[in-house]
Amino acid sequence: MGVRMENQQPIIAPEPRQLTPEESTVELVNLFDKMKAVKAFVLDIDGVLTDNMMLVTEAGELLRSVNVRDGQVIKWAIKAGYQVGIITGGRSEGAKKRFTDLGVVEYYSGIQEKWPALQSFLQRSDLLVSEICYIGDDLPDLPVLRKVALACCPSDAVPEVVEICDYVSPLRGGAGCVRDVLEKVLKLQGNWPEY
Amino acid sequence: MGVRMENQQPIIAPEPRQLTPEESTVELVNLFDKMKAVKAFVLDIDGVLTDNMMLVTEAGELLRSVNVRDGQVIKWAIKAGYQVGIITGGRSEGAKKRFTDLGVVEYYSGIQEKWPALQSFLQRSDLLVSEICYIGDDLPDLPVLRKVALACCPSDAVPEVVEICDYVSPLRGGAGCVRDVLEKVLKLQGNWPEY
Amino acid sequence: MGVRMENQQPIIAPEPRQLTPEESTVELVNLFDKMKAVKAFVLDIDGVLTDNMMLVTEAGELLRSVNVRDGQVIKWAIKAGYQVGIITGGRSEGAKKRFTDLGVVEYYSGIQEKWPALQSFLQRSDLLVSEICYIGDDLPDLPVLRKVALACCPSDAVPEVVEICDYVSPLRGGAGCVRDVLEKVLKLQGNWPEY
Amino acid sequence: MGVRMENQQPIIAPEPRQLTPEESTVELVNLFDKMKAVKAFVLDIDGVLTDNMMLVTEAGELLRSVNVRDGQVIKWAIKAGYQVGIITGGRSEGAKKRFTDLGVVEYYSGIQEKWPALQSFLQRSDLLVSEICYIGDDLPDLPVLRKVALACCPSDAVPEVVEICDYVSPLRGGAGCVRDVLEKVLKLQGNWPEY
Repeated sequence: MGVRMENQQPIIAPEPRQLTPEESTVELVNLFDKMKAVKAFVLDIDGVLTDNMMLVTEAGELLRSVNVRDGQVIKWAIKAGYQVGIITGGRSEGAKKRFTDLGVVEYYSGIQEKWPALQSFLQRSDLLVSEICYIGDDLPDLPVLRKVALACCPSDAVPEVVEICDYVSPLRGGAGCVRDVLEKVLKLQGNWPEY
Repeated sequence: MGVRMENQQPIIAPEPRQLTPEESTVELVNLFDKMKAVKAFVLDIDGVLTDNMMLVTEAGELLRSVNVRDGQVIKWAIKAGYQVGIITGGRSEGAKKRFTDLGVVEYYSGIQEKWPALQSFLQRSDLLVSEICYIGDDLPDLPVLRKVALACCPSDAVPEVVEICDYVSPLRGGAGCVRDVLEKVLKLQGNWPEY
Repeated sequence: MGVRMENQQPIIAPEPRQLTPEESTVELVNLFDKMKAVKAFVLDIDGVLTDNMMLVTEAGELLRSVNVRDGQVIKWAIKAGYQVGIITGGRSEGAKKRFTDLGVVEYYSGIQEKWPALQSFLQRSDLLVSEICYIGDDLPDLPVLRKVALACCPSDAVPEVVEICDYVSPLRGGAGCVRDVLEKVLKLQGNWPEY
Repeated sequence: MGVRMENQQPIIAPEPRQLTPEESTVELVNLFDKMKAVKAFVLDIDGVLTDNMMLVTEAGELLRSVNVRDGQVIKWAIKAGYQVGIITGGRSEGAKKRFTDLGVVEYYSGIQEKWPALQSFLQRSDLLVSEICYIGDDLPDLPVLRKVALACCPSDAVPEVVEICDYVSPLRGGAGCVRDVLEKVLKLQGNWPEY
C-alpha cells in the first residue's frame, strides 16, 4: 500500500500561527464592523447554494439540489431591503427560475470571469464594493472575494478560499451556509423577522 | 484568514443552566404526560419530512425526498385512529399525492401563517390544541409550536425552535424524526403494531 | 427547553449483557456455520438496497437510489449459482427493471405480509428456509427474519430488527450492506470472483 | 443478538506493519516521482466520479450525480494539455454527454474488461502505461491499477483496491477525489491555474 492522506491538505502545509486571545477579539470586532456595512449579498451557486453535486439526466441536463432554509433567508433579506445577486459559472433554467422566484433580480449565469460580472452588478444596483457580502467556495471566486467588504465561504470551501475569507461558516455548501451568513448580518443590523 | 466558527450558534450564546437529576426526572415525567394526551399529529414538510433539500428540475419544479419509515409510521398511526395533518409553506403536487396516498386527509399547502391553518385543522377535525403534537423545524413553525400540547422538532431544527420544544428527536429532518416521535407516542399509548 | 435525546433508543432501554470472550468466539463460529449453509439471498428493498429515501416526482412517482456495489455483488452471486430474490412492500417499475436486469427472477412487490411471499419463493425455487439468507431493516421484515437460516440487517435497521439478527452489517442501507453480506458468504464458500 | 461488526473489514484482517519515519519519507518521494511522470488521467465513473449511487427512474434509467469540482479540474487538466479518458462498466447517455462536454474525447462505456480498454486508449492516444494515472474503486479496476504508473483510489474504495494503490485520496468517490488527485499532479508539474 502506498500513501494514504488523512485529510485534504496541501502536500506541504504551512503551520498557521495561533491567534492570541487579544488578537481573536480584534478579529471578531472587525468581523462585526464588516457585517454591519453590508447592503447586498452576492452568491455563487455550486458549492454554496448546493453541495457541488449535480444529477445528470439521460438528456444531459444537470440538476441541482437547493436548501429550503437558504431560500427562506433570501426572501427575508429581500423583504428587508437588501439586494441579492447570483453569479454562477453554470447554466440552468431551473436554477434561474428558482432564484428569480425568490425575488433575485440580478442573475448572471455562464460566467467565466466573476469580477467583471460583479462590476456589472454594482453599476446596475448603484452599490459600492465596500457594501457587498460575497459567498464563494472555489478558485474562480477568488478575484471577487479579495475585493468585497465581507468575504464568506462554506466550511468545505477549497483551502485557497478559506484562507482569505473574513468569515468561514460552520455549515457546508448546500447545508445552510447562506442562511447562516445572511442571518448573522440581518440580526446584527436589526433586520431579523419576528415570529 | 478571518473568523472560523466551530459550530452554528448565535454570535453571543446564552449559557444554558444544567438541569439537576431531580429536574431531569420531572421533565421526563412531564414529557410522558404530554405524549399520553396526544390524539393527532400535525407535520411540517420541509426540514421535518425532508432534509430541507429540493431537486430543481429544468422546468423549475422542486422535488423533495421523503423517508419510507416516516411514511410507514403515518400509515400505522392513521390505522390506529390518530388524525394526521400536514401544514406546509411549499406547494407540490407530488408531495400532496404522497401524503394523501398514505391516508392524510387534512393537507394545507402554500401556507404563510401556520397558526390559522392549525385552527382550521382543529375545527374541521373536532380536536383541541391540547390534543395536538406538532413537529416543525424553522421560525414559521414557532407560532404553532408555542401553543400545542406536544411541541417536537428534528435534531437539526434552528436554535429558536429547539429552545421551545418539549421533545427534540435525536434524528434529523428526513432521517426518520417523524417515525421517532410518532413511535414513542403510539408505544406509550399502547397502539404500536405487533409483528 | 424540554427533553433532548442523545440517540435513538427506547425510552427505557434494557441493558444488554456484555458477552465474555469465550461467548464471542462461539457466536462467531456459529455465524460462520450459518453463512456456509446459505444457498439463496432474499432482500428487502427500502432501507436495505436503499437508504429509505424516495424522490417524489410531480406526477407522484417515488424514485429510489440504488448502490452500484450492491448491484455488482448480486450479479456475481447469480453467476456463481446462488438464487437471489426480492420481497418489497413498495411498487416501482423502475426498481423492478433494475433488479431483473441484474438477473433477479423472483421479484415480489407490493407485499404486506412477507412470510407468505417467502414461502412462495421457497416453493418456486425448491429451497428450504434453512438455506436462506434474508436482509431486512424494519418491523415487517421480522416474521421472515425470525425463521431464516441467516438473518442480516444494515447498521441502521430499527432496534427490534438489530436485536434478532445473526449478523449486523457495519454498513447502512443503500451504502453497501448487501455487498458486505453477500461478499462474506461468497468468500466463506470459495465463490468470490478473481480479478 | 448476533454479531455486530464495528467496521467493514475482512473477517480475518491482516495486521499491517507500521512504516518507520524513514520508510514513510521514501514512500512520499516515490509518490512524487510517480506524480511527476503523469501525462494522462483515466477515470472510472461509478464510485470515483460518483458516490456509487444511481437514481432509478420509472423508465428504468439509472441517473448518476457528479461533482462540480471534479468537472472543473478535468477542464483545467485538458486545457493544460493532459489527456483525460473514461472507462466505465455502465452505460449512460447523460454521463457520456457530461464528460464529452468537459472535453473528454476517449470515452469507453459498457466495459467488462478494463485492461483491454486501457490498451485501446494507449494506442489511440500514443501514450505509455508508464505515463498513466488511473483512479478506480472496485475489483474490476484491479487489472488496470496493477499496471499503471500512478494507481489512485477514493478513501471508500474496497480494501483490495486500497491495498495496491500508490495514493489513497482522503476524499470519497463523488466527493472530490478526482479534483484532489488531478490537483496534486497539476501542482507538482507547475500546471495549476492562477486566479
